[in-house]
Amino acid sequence: MSSQTFELLILGSSSASPTSERNPSAQLLNIAERYFLIDCGEATQIQLRRFKAKFQAIDHIFISHLHGDHFFGLPGLLSSMHLLGRKQEITIYCPKELKDVMDLMNTISDTRFNFTVNWVFTKNDGLNLIFEDDKVEVFSFPLKHRIFCTGFLFKEKPLPRKIDKYKLDKFKVSTADVLQLKNGNDVVNQEGITIKNKQVTIDPRDPKSYAYASDTIYLPAIVEYVKDVDLLYHESTFLNDKKERAEKTYHSTAEQAAQIAKAANVKQLLLGHFSARYGDLDQFIAEAQPFFDNCLLATDGKRITI
Amino acid sequence: MSSQTFELLILGSSSASPTSERNPSAQLLNIAERYFLIDCGEATQIQLRRFKAKFQAIDHIFISHLHGDHFFGLPGLLSSMHLLGRKQEITIYCPKELKDVMDLMNTISDTRFNFTVNWVFTKNDGLNLIFEDDKVEVFSFPLKHRIFCTGFLFKEKPLPRKIDKYKLDKFKVSTADVLQLKNGNDVVNQEGITIKNKQVTIDPRDPKSYAYASDTIYLPAIVEYVKDVDLLYHESTFLNDKKERAEKTYHSTAEQAAQIAKAANVKQLLLGHFSARYGDLDQFIAEAQPFFDNCLLATDGKRITI
Repeated sequence: MSSQTFELLILGSSSASPTSERNPSAQLLNIAERYFLIDCGEATQIQLRRFKAKFQAIDHIFISHLHGDHFFGLPGLLSSMHLLGRKQEITIYCPKELKDVMDLMNTISDTRFNFTVNWVFTKNDGLNLIFEDDKVEVFSFPLKHRIFCTGFLFKEKPLPRKIDKYKLDKFKVSTADVLQLKNGNDVVNQEGITIKNKQVTIDPRDPKSYAYASDTIYLPAIVEYVKDVDLLYHESTFLNDKKERAEKTYHSTAEQAAQIAKAANVKQLLLGHFSARYGDLDQFIAEAQPFFDNCLLATDGKRITI
Repeated sequence: MSSQTFELLILGSSSASPTSERNPSAQLLNIAERYFLIDCGEATQIQLRRFKAKFQAIDHIFISHLHGDHFFGLPGLLSSMHLLGRKQEITIYCPKELKDVMDLMNTISDTRFNFTVNWVFTKNDGLNLIFEDDKVEVFSFPLKHRIFCTGFLFKEKPLPRKIDKYKLDKFKVSTADVLQLKNGNDVVNQEGITIKNKQVTIDPRDPKSYAYASDTIYLPAIVEYVKDVDLLYHESTFLNDKKERAEKTYHSTAEQAAQIAKAANVKQLLLGHFSARYGDLDQFIAEAQPFFDNCLLATDGKRITI
């Protein structure tokens, strides 16, 4: 079970308007075969096809805020899901006005999806648990942008203990016993023998975590929310040459993203949401690395195994 | 002046959901350097970049109806026009509810475009002149689809008469005189000599025309609107194997499109809006040609000089 998947696919990495190389914001996160779509800029459905992602496996969509480059792809994605026969429900975590948009779109096109859309509206008051199942927890946390905006924190729950099969072979155990052992309990088997958990199990790997912080002005207040995550995506719309513009438009620079990463003691930093004015992205790494060494660029199509 | 441009660029040719080869409906028509965008499916702005079309030269956008595959690209296109510094006004010809969508999008994203958007709402009562300048006229005409939908007819105005320079060289004429001659008038030049129009001009080529008919059920009533056009785009979502489905969903087959083309005596037929179920499009030509010989397929990126 320690082979549980935790993989991120970048579907778009451009800010505002797309370029010939970069689509607007969208990412697909797979944790233990739960597919979480994070933001949904225009043409996200096309990117999903292009990178051969599992379209209909997406059951949860997280929208950070209502600037078009983060949600203009949602109506088309939901329409295609409907037209391609989707029946299973989907849940959208977003600012509440997005439901008004979808309602209006469906009204004017006389469309009624064959699946249920559940809406969970994000709030702006600290860390909020917005999704939970047996393996994963997702939280929203406030960012500071021109309009209401939240980041998202994805965390694996503690993984089950790993069975040492060689050691367990000495005992007769049922399937139920194995489950008890994985959950950290001792068991008494059918022969009445007590099997101490520590005899036959070993520690699983630590749970992994991913934080998504886009769009935001440089905001040290988020450090507490993203503390120690394995991977932090932090927007870096600009380089230092546009530091004033970053502040004025409530965006960040690569250097500021690196400072957040350092202060939060994250393991790796992923930079993205690049302004269309920048062709060569290496400069983003160059400006971030003096402050935080372990940086990556979120380019379209990149897959990151966390 | 007979070299006046009349060129169509196909930006998308898929129905409903896009495929890896085909984007949803959008076309760019250039008549005498007026750029008319016809429908605007998701990712039209990306297609415009891909095919190196003049993005900001578009001053008129025509939306046939409010199914998503015909307008989901509009919010993103207008946003990018705004972000890239557009100042000149734009006019959108569409069903009236589209303005509600754009107003809501701009409200929730706290956006105010730096250019004026003029709205001309289409009607469902016969041929309506919706745009006119010195060289071009555009009309809407009713189609029959699941929701309110119109086609569009683009017509050049009669072209100015062509000056026969060799013959005119014998006379002294002012620039104003030349204009009069191009407009078909006789002139008396500064020397008092009457120059008969027929002495120094020749007939221009006939005005060209293009009709766009998508989406619609087989509808012989449109023949009167598209009569004799140089090029008719008629949707052909399905082949004969899905003739019943075409009728049920208010779409047409390739054969039905050809029958309209024949009845309307058009010069050329352009087939498009293909269902994603069809990979090989040659069959559309095969089913249309027995009824109308001069057929083309609207594939993404195709340029047609009319």
